[in-house]
Amino acid sequence: MVRKEVSPFEFFEETDSLMRSGGLLLVSSGKDGKPNAMTIGWGLVGTMWRLPVFCVAVRLSRYTHKLIDETGRFTVCLPSKNMDEVLDVCGTKSGRDMDKLKELGLTAKKGKVVDVPYIEECPIHYECEVIYKTVLEPGQLKKAVEGDVYPTGNYHTMYYGHIKGVYAEEGAHGNLL
Amino acid sequence: MVRKEVSPFEFFEETDSLMRSGGLLLVSSGKDGKPNAMTIGWGLVGTMWRLPVFCVAVRLSRYTHKLIDETGRFTVCLPSKNMDEVLDVCGTKSGRDMDKLKELGLTAKKGKVVDVPYIEECPIHYECEVIYKTVLEPGQLKKAVEGDVYPTGNYHTMYYGHIKGVYAEEGAHGNLL
Repeated sequence: MVRKEVSPFEFFEETDSLMRSGGLLLVSSGKDGKPNAMTIGWGLVGTMWRLPVFCVAVRLSRYTHKLIDETGRFTVCLPSKNMDEVLDVCGTKSGRDMDKLKELGLTAKKGKVVDVPYIEECPIHYECEVIYKTVLEPGQLKKAVEGDVYPTGNYHTMYYGHIKGVYAEEGAHGNLL
Repeated sequence: MVRKEVSPFEFFEETDSLMRSGGLLLVSSGKDGKPNAMTIGWGLVGTMWRLPVFCVAVRLSRYTHKLIDETGRFTVCLPSKNMDEVLDVCGTKSGRDMDKLKELGLTAKKGKVVDVPYIEECPIHYECEVIYKTVLEPGQLKKAVEGDVYPTGNYHTMYYGHIKGVYAEEGAHGNLL
């Protein structure tokens, strides 16, 4: 289906709402070009350095961490209605062990302005280039949260992605999970 | 006017739009309790550590930096229609040199759930507690941006504020700048 460019924050509400319910798909590929997706439930959106930014959090242990470090690019894809299983698999399996997109029957397409894959079955996607990254600093987070979220020191890297384009299918809103 | 609690992200669109045009007011007070406001044009909003978060960027040199470090609390206030001069003054003058709220005829009120001032003349405000903070790391930002924004090394601290409550006057939407 045709996908049109929309303004960077037109779908913030849907993005935020999905993030806090089923999740979003963070899609990337490494130097070998093989696409991979992981489910994310955390992220920040807004303006920094006069640019539209999507900031995603990826733990150091993740396969996606290696991929984004290799290329400095990612997409965030909003799942459609029938994607509960996709979110489940992409949130529990590692791309080191399986080709998630292939096994789930998903189609990787090349981004429109950034050389990075997105998932065609997702009606809306953001294309981003990493402009800044930082690993969370031990001891700086409130103690109760730190003990709960990082008991083994597997911290998140915060990848600040410059949003280069957001694309939506016609009628995308009604087709989201 | 009565101010009611709304969901953390109900006014994201207005918040983001004002951030990229006139600006928002970042309000804080230090140990002495004296309120101060600065104009901000950058910030990120979303979910981290399962919590609603407003992340604001404050340069190390700013008076507000000292105040937030002292108390770990801030509000973000959305300006109303007639506040162009307020945004101008709060973006160019330092609270070290003048009592901005007093000179501008603004009213500081105590937050509803966080012990931090907000500006009554602003129809919507966020009350936040700092949950994490980190200074931007030299050399990690894309070179062109770093040279443009931080030519003298006056980096931003990113204060991740846990949004404890968002409050809006009735009809607030129509009264924003």
